[in-house]
Amino acid sequence: MNLNIIAIIGYCAAFGTTISFLPQAIKTIQTKDTSGISLPMYALFTAGTLLWLLYGILSDSLPVAIANAITLIFASIILVYKIRYK
Amino acid sequence: MNLNIIAIIGYCAAFGTTISFLPQAIKTIQTKDTSGISLPMYALFTAGTLLWLLYGILSDSLPVAIANAITLIFASIILVYKIRYK
Repeated sequence: MNLNIIAIIGYCAAFGTTISFLPQAIKTIQTKDTSGISLPMYALFTAGTLLWLLYGILSDSLPVAIANAITLIFASIILVYKIRYK
Repeated sequence: MNLNIIAIIGYCAAFGTTISFLPQAIKTIQTKDTSGISLPMYALFTAGTLLWLLYGILSDSLPVAIANAITLIFASIILVYKIRYK
């Protein structure tokens, strides 16, 4: 398949998975309803995203670094709310 | 930095963000408590993960394909529960 099409699929994928945490962060901030949210999930996910950011920086992969820096912000907010309002 | 160390960081990152959805899926299945979970998040995230899987297959990147196939299973379960028990 055309390499450009594959790249476009990759960018759409990155955009979707990155931006998806924004509505969750907004919902959690507005409602403070974290009963159904898993603490181990956000602890693991935030740590994993931090490692992805580190990996992106060390391997000079700007898209990986930027996408994970954004996700890290959203995931950290949700994690802090989960710890505070559990 | 040593390329092996960078690769190990990448694998740890992939493991953390992939496996993190397992405790959320288990919690959601057991409690059916989805009030704090964002539907737009899981709709976007599941679609994004599906595109990542497609990207991994088309670009012959087995790690990307495998990690996202696993995440897709967990994210789909959470999405289905959110739709059914909202």
